[in-house]
Amino acid sequence: MAKTILNGLLATATAVGLSFPSIASAQSLDEVMEARGLTQQDLLAAAKTYTPTGGRDEFIVFSSGGQSGQIMVYGVPSMRILKYVSVFTPEPWQGYGFDEESKAVLEQGRIDGKLLNWGDTHHPAISETDGDLDGEWLFINDKSAPRIGLVSLHDFETQQIVVNPIMQSEHGGAFVTPNTDYIIEATQYPAPLGRGFAPLSEFNEKYRGAVTYWKFDREAGRIDQSKSFSLELPPYSQDLSDAGKLVSDGWSFTNSFCAERYVGGIESGRPPFEAGCSQNDTDYLHVINWEKAVGVYEAGKVEMINDHPVIMMDTAIEEGLVYLIAEPKSPHGVDVSPDGEYIVVGGKLDTHASVYSFSKIMAAVEAGNFSGTDPYGIPIISMEDALHVQVALGLGPLHNQFDSKECVIYTSLYVDSQVAKWDYCEGKLLDKISIHYNIGHLVAMEGESVHPAGKYLISLNKLAIDRFNPVGPLHPQNHQLIDISGDKMELLYDMPVPLGEPHYAAAIAAEKLKPLVRYRYGTNSRTGGKHEGAVRPGQERIERDGDTVTVYMTAIRSHFTPEIVEVNEGDTVRFVVTNSERAEDETHGFSISTFDVNLSLEPGKTATAEIVADRPGVYSYYCTEFCSALHLEMTGYLVVKPEGYVEEATVGEEGTLWTEADYKKQVETNVQTQGVIDSVVVYITSRNFQDFPEVVALVEDATDQLTFAEDAKAKSEAAATESDWQNATLWAGQWWQYQVKAADIGLRAKNFLDEEGAVVTAE
Amino acid sequence: MAKTILNGLLATATAVGLSFPSIASAQSLDEVMEARGLTQQDLLAAAKTYTPTGGRDEFIVFSSGGQSGQIMVYGVPSMRILKYVSVFTPEPWQGYGFDEESKAVLEQGRIDGKLLNWGDTHHPAISETDGDLDGEWLFINDKSAPRIGLVSLHDFETQQIVVNPIMQSEHGGAFVTPNTDYIIEATQYPAPLGRGFAPLSEFNEKYRGAVTYWKFDREAGRIDQSKSFSLELPPYSQDLSDAGKLVSDGWSFTNSFCAERYVGGIESGRPPFEAGCSQNDTDYLHVINWEKAVGVYEAGKVEMINDHPVIMMDTAIEEGLVYLIAEPKSPHGVDVSPDGEYIVVGGKLDTHASVYSFSKIMAAVEAGNFSGTDPYGIPIISMEDALHVQVALGLGPLHNQFDSKECVIYTSLYVDSQVAKWDYCEGKLLDKISIHYNIGHLVAMEGESVHPAGKYLISLNKLAIDRFNPVGPLHPQNHQLIDISGDKMELLYDMPVPLGEPHYAAAIAAEKLKPLVRYRYGTNSRTGGKHEGAVRPGQERIERDGDTVTVYMTAIRSHFTPEIVEVNEGDTVRFVVTNSERAEDETHGFSISTFDVNLSLEPGKTATAEIVADRPGVYSYYCTEFCSALHLEMTGYLVVKPEGYVEEATVGEEGTLWTEADYKKQVETNVQTQGVIDSVVVYITSRNFQDFPEVVALVEDATDQLTFAEDAKAKSEAAATESDWQNATLWAGQWWQYQVKAADIGLRAKNFLDEEGAVVTAE
Repeated sequence: MAKTILNGLLATATAVGLSFPSIASAQSLDEVMEARGLTQQDLLAAAKTYTPTGGRDEFIVFSSGGQSGQIMVYGVPSMRILKYVSVFTPEPWQGYGFDEESKAVLEQGRIDGKLLNWGDTHHPAISETDGDLDGEWLFINDKSAPRIGLVSLHDFETQQIVVNPIMQSEHGGAFVTPNTDYIIEATQYPAPLGRGFAPLSEFNEKYRGAVTYWKFDREAGRIDQSKSFSLELPPYSQDLSDAGKLVSDGWSFTNSFCAERYVGGIESGRPPFEAGCSQNDTDYLHVINWEKAVGVYEAGKVEMINDHPVIMMDTAIEEGLVYLIAEPKSPHGVDVSPDGEYIVVGGKLDTHASVYSFSKIMAAVEAGNFSGTDPYGIPIISMEDALHVQVALGLGPLHNQFDSKECVIYTSLYVDSQVAKWDYCEGKLLDKISIHYNIGHLVAMEGESVHPAGKYLISLNKLAIDRFNPVGPLHPQNHQLIDISGDKMELLYDMPVPLGEPHYAAAIAAEKLKPLVRYRYGTNSRTGGKHEGAVRPGQERIERDGDTVTVYMTAIRSHFTPEIVEVNEGDTVRFVVTNSERAEDETHGFSISTFDVNLSLEPGKTATAEIVADRPGVYSYYCTEFCSALHLEMTGYLVVKPEGYVEEATVGEEGTLWTEADYKKQVETNVQTQGVIDSVVVYITSRNFQDFPEVVALVEDATDQLTFAEDAKAKSEAAATESDWQNATLWAGQWWQYQVKAADIGLRAKNFLDEEGAVVTAE
Repeated sequence: MAKTILNGLLATATAVGLSFPSIASAQSLDEVMEARGLTQQDLLAAAKTYTPTGGRDEFIVFSSGGQSGQIMVYGVPSMRILKYVSVFTPEPWQGYGFDEESKAVLEQGRIDGKLLNWGDTHHPAISETDGDLDGEWLFINDKSAPRIGLVSLHDFETQQIVVNPIMQSEHGGAFVTPNTDYIIEATQYPAPLGRGFAPLSEFNEKYRGAVTYWKFDREAGRIDQSKSFSLELPPYSQDLSDAGKLVSDGWSFTNSFCAERYVGGIESGRPPFEAGCSQNDTDYLHVINWEKAVGVYEAGKVEMINDHPVIMMDTAIEEGLVYLIAEPKSPHGVDVSPDGEYIVVGGKLDTHASVYSFSKIMAAVEAGNFSGTDPYGIPIISMEDALHVQVALGLGPLHNQFDSKECVIYTSLYVDSQVAKWDYCEGKLLDKISIHYNIGHLVAMEGESVHPAGKYLISLNKLAIDRFNPVGPLHPQNHQLIDISGDKMELLYDMPVPLGEPHYAAAIAAEKLKPLVRYRYGTNSRTGGKHEGAVRPGQERIERDGDTVTVYMTAIRSHFTPEIVEVNEGDTVRFVVTNSERAEDETHGFSISTFDVNLSLEPGKTATAEIVADRPGVYSYYCTEFCSALHLEMTGYLVVKPEGYVEEATVGEEGTLWTEADYKKQVETNVQTQGVIDSVVVYITSRNFQDFPEVVALVEDATDQLTFAEDAKAKSEAAATESDWQNATLWAGQWWQYQVKAADIGLRAKNFLDEEGAVVTAE
């Protein structure tokens, strides 16, 4: 019966002619459309979004995951979610917070001594070069604790978390300057800077807002806290921000709500925050000269708060760093046009979008033309002096995104549940489309860069209500894809969001991303550097240092080395595991039953699972990623010996005994199997497989497996020489296992060639 | 300018005639197909899967989330992910592990004193009635620690976790008996029962497998540990299981690999587990009479291990509870046919699927016709005596699923990367389709019930490699949807899996699910009962008991009551928050900045955030679900007073002072706004809105908001009577806020009626 797989291989290898009757689908397109109630418009939308197997999306969206603390990555136009990247929340499937390397990243996010297990991600920003998205790095903020996370777009892993030293709460981050020199982070709810205490009765005097400019060191690939600084701001609720670009480069814009400085207290008969914070007709747009502020900071004109340099308001006013402009009622988004000249603000509780002119603002600043100052002495530029145009769009205008078409902008209307398309140069409404329902942010392809890509717009809707099959009281959100290539917006697709509430998203042309296929051998993915505990196959070892046992391990299809680890009760055990695969997608996991660890080991990665063996017993460890047909057999035992246990030098009885006949039978199978593999190799190499990089990679991998097979074969033959039939048989079995892996890969390569229409180049 | 929203409302309410030019799409279907490289076959697949806005899926799939510890819920045929349900892993967006109620569920999963923060979910099972899926409950196992989670399909929340008292490792769960009397859980890697210690040299004598039958109390909606029991099994690696049904009801089937009882040790020159565990041509299928075992357990013929009753092997053999049948080489799945007569096993390392006949097995048992016993004395039925038919399918047959068509079955072929369709009555191969790549499980619609639904099959592929845009070294898995309605299988859709590695999935007709729209007011969702801390609006209060302060709070669009909470440094503070909304989808969140808590409060739910106020300062709390235009203003302050702080009885200065003129202006706005709302009401009520349940619900919600508006209006007028213009203005503002909420809802209702083609029923 061991020959059956051989027969299978033979069957497959010779099955070029085999095919089942190719009956056309029983249902015609018209029948399907009628059965499913599709209109012609639906079919067109389907054709614009459906992506057949192996197809690629044109754009990749990075969406915040809200209270999940993660980032959701999906493709456009297919609207298929490709990955969740964990940033602030532990995620076992990525090993995040479960291996020692990523725990070190989460430790960076400790705030006032507290280790946090989640975040409330809001606004992702892709790194920019000259105002264009460059696809290297991604920054995202946490509203639940004032922090910024940094994700490498090479491996889609979080590599750094920085904690804001002075804020208690933030919302207006992360936004990058056009060359990613700085990442902007603005407070949300006012509090004493430095997270100290002050009673609410001293709100006006002691509570403050702020904006932090985090320095990004691109060469190091890290935010440099030692070169970052902040500006003190009044106790308004600062909100979203945007960096100037081109003509307005060097400036940044931060809006606000609750310039009323209202402090609620509904429990004591006061109207709630929502009433007091929305009573006035206007709030303030903060206009900040960050480039000049860098000079002021570098000149040392700062106060240190929690060891962090802060330019205080008086200094900022004196140095001409900050100005205010009235903006309509509790605005939400502020967005700078691709050419940098216009700053667009939606008045959340006002039906208008207001377009400010940067040159008008500069003229007012230069002329010292101010209508007065706010209670803290900041000069106010009158709205009339700064305004380019104001357009009535509808109810609840929130955010704006720019089209590739000149002067065309899209604005979300929360209360109206619509998107407005309008001309911000002429101040003219062009089109509206209804969404489902209550849109927050929206995102156009590269829609905040200096070169928006147009084509698609996504409406990030807060409510889905009746759009999808019900899944309990907690509904998904709804991301709706809209075709903006024509004059009229067209709704293409509803995508439910299964996890967390996204706020903002950033979309980039897929071709700009250059993710790694595999890590350099032995990489610590959280530092990007070589892992000091990485070992090559053959170098595995177990080392004891006092009560700490370190296991230097490798993982490959489908076994760990070592497979048996014996320690004493109370030992600290560190498994430093390196995935020694080089094949794409050949990830292994590592878990120890009933211990709270899991590693995700992509090819080349090294990661560490550390446990305290506090309870005697035997614990199986196993691979948590289905890696080959022998995946379930990829296991081992951690044996924790009880205190005082005296080992007897006994060897266990073998469960099964194999004989010379077993050995011979296995070898016969292997020889025949090799013949079949050779025929697959002939099939592949007689075609133009080298034109297909995917197949070249598979062939490399199969070659690796056959090399391993040779090694097992040698061990088998050596044992046979000594009539050790037990080991001879088993090593022959292992030799065959490597052959099966080679066959698996070979068949995938063969199928790929068949599907891609490879041609015969040799006979 | 405060009137601008009014103008907006007017514009919208009267905009029935307003429309932008309806230009047909610039691109025709042919142009789109050409541009996107779609074939006619692709277009047909698109039409079979594309689901326009508001459309519903016919089936709902519950897929394990692997090392994410979660369950993924998606629709078929749209393949859109609707929700992730957290089971073993904390998930802040659902409050899971962040509120006290769900922490209590995770506490149930503590094992040997250890609280675990993840799980490795493998096999979901939907509760059954008479062998048909009933859509009430879902069970899922954890391979990383031997546990079962219970999810309510009424609210898609995890309500119970049970820890296996005797296993160290499991894999073969959860599988239910036809009336969900028992949930089956089988070990994976052998270990001493009870998780004790024994050296590996005593593997054959002291290591064991087991299968646990968990009793489900449907009335209580809980697994009843006090009525559950286990059977001791030999130290083979038991694997997947399935319950008999109809003719085979009362029996269950558990297969195994590594019947070789091989113990690896590659580090000491031994061949690895993968070689030794796959050396023999056959392993054993365990055939167990669980119904009879219940009687043996109830008769007390058990040994207690960790207070858990275990029927030991000797008893099981003596009582005739367990038999073995040889099955081909390291099988993986075992699946019982809809009529209960056939048991199908795929030989993972054998090219055959083997179909056993239940009546033949019974005949052998009754005749005492055994070929011998295994090393532990369990009777072995010879394969020939039990086998119905054996079919060569291809390389790596793993799992099976049944079609609605008689005798038709689908089997995954891991190594071949194919699905085989075959006839298990006649033993005939019918069709094959290539998948991408390396399929593990597969799932047909209700494909393991007594009435499979056919239509669709999903291939759960382990590798995606080149199918999607690259997202770093860690790739998604790939779920491929296959149309099985015709004679030939047709590939319809590739769905990337963004989070965790799914193993198995269960698919149910969507119409069988009856999820809750909202909770009964004040529900503790983790118990399903009334929460003792729930309060109605007006009953909110703050209570101190020693160092513990309990805040009984409500949340509604868009404020918390109370908004200011003052405590002393070192206090334990418990926020027991009830969402007092009744509108569908109106979820609120609750987070306290820099503390590690987040609540997800769906309408009617009560949950508790508990923190220790260990550091003086001011901490804003806020709503983490965008709930209305005033969402950002849904905030409050937790004020933690430093030890020894002496409060001065000062009242803070107001940030803004409002006058009689402000009050009058606001009232004027409100009166006009009310006129507009009335016109929307007329628009809605003059149409057949009562034919649309969604709109009826919206109208109810809007009516609620207007009632709240009346209340705020009364407060405003009372303040005005006393010339308290500050409060008069602010309460008038709050009155207007409720009007805006009513308008938001009214506009959604109006849009819905327009889109659904409501007709005028009155003028």
